[in-house]
Amino acid sequence: MKKALLMTPGPSQVPPQVLQAMAEPIFHHRTAEYKELQSEVTERLKRIFFSSGEVVVLAASGTGAMEASVVNVLGGGRKGLSLEGGKFGQRWGDICQAFGYECERVEIEWGKAANPAVVAERLAANKSIAAVYATLVETSTGVENDIRAIGEAVAGTDAILVVDGISGAGGSELRFDDWGVDILVVGSQKALMMPPGLALAVVSEKARKLIETADRQAYYFDLKKALDKAADSDTPYTPANTLVRALATSLRMIEGEGIEAVFARHRLLAEAMRAGAQALGMKIFAERPAAVVTAIELPESIDGSALSKLLEKKFAVKVAGGQEHLKGRILRVAHMGYCSPSDVIVALSALEMALAELGAKVEPSAAVKAAEAVFARA
Amino acid sequence: MKKALLMTPGPSQVPPQVLQAMAEPIFHHRTAEYKELQSEVTERLKRIFFSSGEVVVLAASGTGAMEASVVNVLGGGRKGLSLEGGKFGQRWGDICQAFGYECERVEIEWGKAANPAVVAERLAANKSIAAVYATLVETSTGVENDIRAIGEAVAGTDAILVVDGISGAGGSELRFDDWGVDILVVGSQKALMMPPGLALAVVSEKARKLIETADRQAYYFDLKKALDKAADSDTPYTPANTLVRALATSLRMIEGEGIEAVFARHRLLAEAMRAGAQALGMKIFAERPAAVVTAIELPESIDGSALSKLLEKKFAVKVAGGQEHLKGRILRVAHMGYCSPSDVIVALSALEMALAELGAKVEPSAAVKAAEAVFARA
Repeated sequence: MKKALLMTPGPSQVPPQVLQAMAEPIFHHRTAEYKELQSEVTERLKRIFFSSGEVVVLAASGTGAMEASVVNVLGGGRKGLSLEGGKFGQRWGDICQAFGYECERVEIEWGKAANPAVVAERLAANKSIAAVYATLVETSTGVENDIRAIGEAVAGTDAILVVDGISGAGGSELRFDDWGVDILVVGSQKALMMPPGLALAVVSEKARKLIETADRQAYYFDLKKALDKAADSDTPYTPANTLVRALATSLRMIEGEGIEAVFARHRLLAEAMRAGAQALGMKIFAERPAAVVTAIELPESIDGSALSKLLEKKFAVKVAGGQEHLKGRILRVAHMGYCSPSDVIVALSALEMALAELGAKVEPSAAVKAAEAVFARA
Repeated sequence: MKKALLMTPGPSQVPPQVLQAMAEPIFHHRTAEYKELQSEVTERLKRIFFSSGEVVVLAASGTGAMEASVVNVLGGGRKGLSLEGGKFGQRWGDICQAFGYECERVEIEWGKAANPAVVAERLAANKSIAAVYATLVETSTGVENDIRAIGEAVAGTDAILVVDGISGAGGSELRFDDWGVDILVVGSQKALMMPPGLALAVVSEKARKLIETADRQAYYFDLKKALDKAADSDTPYTPANTLVRALATSLRMIEGEGIEAVFARHRLLAEAMRAGAQALGMKIFAERPAAVVTAIELPESIDGSALSKLLEKKFAVKVAGGQEHLKGRILRVAHMGYCSPSDVIVALSALEMALAELGAKVEPSAAVKAAEAVFARA
């Protein structure tokens, strides 16, 4: 018997209650029953994101909602500005490129956070920038960007701020209205404790005005149509209704705990994870580490892919390795959604045992000790 | 206690085994476990569609795969020809229009089937038509188009045949290779006995060549990328892995019964449903009625929407009404996927009781008697 622990940055762990919700009998989506569910989900999402915007529910993975946030906004002389500090930041520029939209791509060294001053400069220098595309948590590097400060740089301009919150929203702190976010893109399989298959877009009034006047290249991802339908708790095309029902369950759990408590839990898990890694002599890769995922720099003597494999095969702990040029150099351990201190302890214990087995010089239980100290202080 | 019977043309009934599969523990999608599942699903789909083509699995509802079949094919002087005999046929033309692709839209009277001779004429007259867009089962009218004959009209030309099989494939007979289908679009929530959330595209070699050289406007729905990944049982973006697992379960059930037996069962259910409706003095709306859904013309004295409501509220049988100008005039009863003779009996029994309650002159149990006779002969 191996009790598997999923600590990857999506999919994350799904609570049994949410899994059970998916096994309830199928029902029709053009019914009062469905509308009630979508309405409940919408109201709960607005509350946990502190947003007065409208919520669009898409049957897609998060990338679909990212595409929607480009093709319904840019074009007709409107330019994008993308802040690219990793694989997911680059996706914004790649989407613009795929559709032939002009986009200033700001390359940021992997591991560093986006610089809000650069956003202010670019916006001042180029008035045709209609949208700034940012990433809340850059999962490839473990960086959590300062969305509040980026929002301040965008506020007062005609541009909107679009945030890929796929990996963070619902776990990392984000305050849509206060921070000046205009479109927030979210995926179901991260901090929302769901399987993949649902993408969400929360849309401000400012963004809605741009969307309504856009030179649109969209059908399935037509946000104007989706926003019109959302006002009536409906969707233009068949929604993934069993996933929406499961999302209602997970949001009830999140609001039951309280969103501020959820933010605090994630900060605590991250702090413990970092303390554990550092106690083993390893560095944290991100300049501004995220609350939902930790990227750990591995000692040169350790082969990251061998370590991941050993963690999974022997200790049943699944984490992610590095991507692109970070392959083999970092380990990415997620602590998002349905994740507790006990999961962090198990992951760190497995990590120190695996590192020792691979010949690294690590003090037995040093990581667990450091994490326990963090939890004890809390 | 009301035992609800879902007889709508999507979502259709989902077997408990499939629901249970969705409640199994979450797992990661970049794993051998997931690849095995996608590979199994792909092989099973190829067998039930009699296709040697490649299968692309998309996290989307069926419309997403329709869009993919347009934006990855047309453009750069390539024109579409859409056969529009109802709401879903029109969607092909609407998608072309949304992206600015040229498309000859062939309007067909609702209730009639597409005429293969017209396809041959149009293709002969206009060599820039690169793709013919057809519908296997036009759910808005209950028509099953003669895809085999349309395929013959397309064969030997440079054009490809794209079939929206969302509502029919897996229940209505379709033989991909033999009938000359080049792209088959399928949704999970119909004859495949699944909840909504997965769209499938089966792609022939001929279509693949067009896709590879297309002037693409796509990112999330980039079929070239998806086909490349599919060769390794993978996807470009996060797949809805719990739905893929559930699809494996439903496909095992379909292949356990045998696809030819599944076709025969659907034909039988349709025959019984039609016999029942006719025994109540009603006409079948479709010229070429489908195996998976029956559109019944209602007597003028009956308000279709009152009938649907009564069927649902009192008899717990959920069917669909007419769409657009057929609103209130027809009743659409689906018998697709996880549907048995007993379901048809219950639906017909409810129908005759509801009609009587609304004041229609119907002979008690006439519909059930007619259906039983059909089942007895089989």
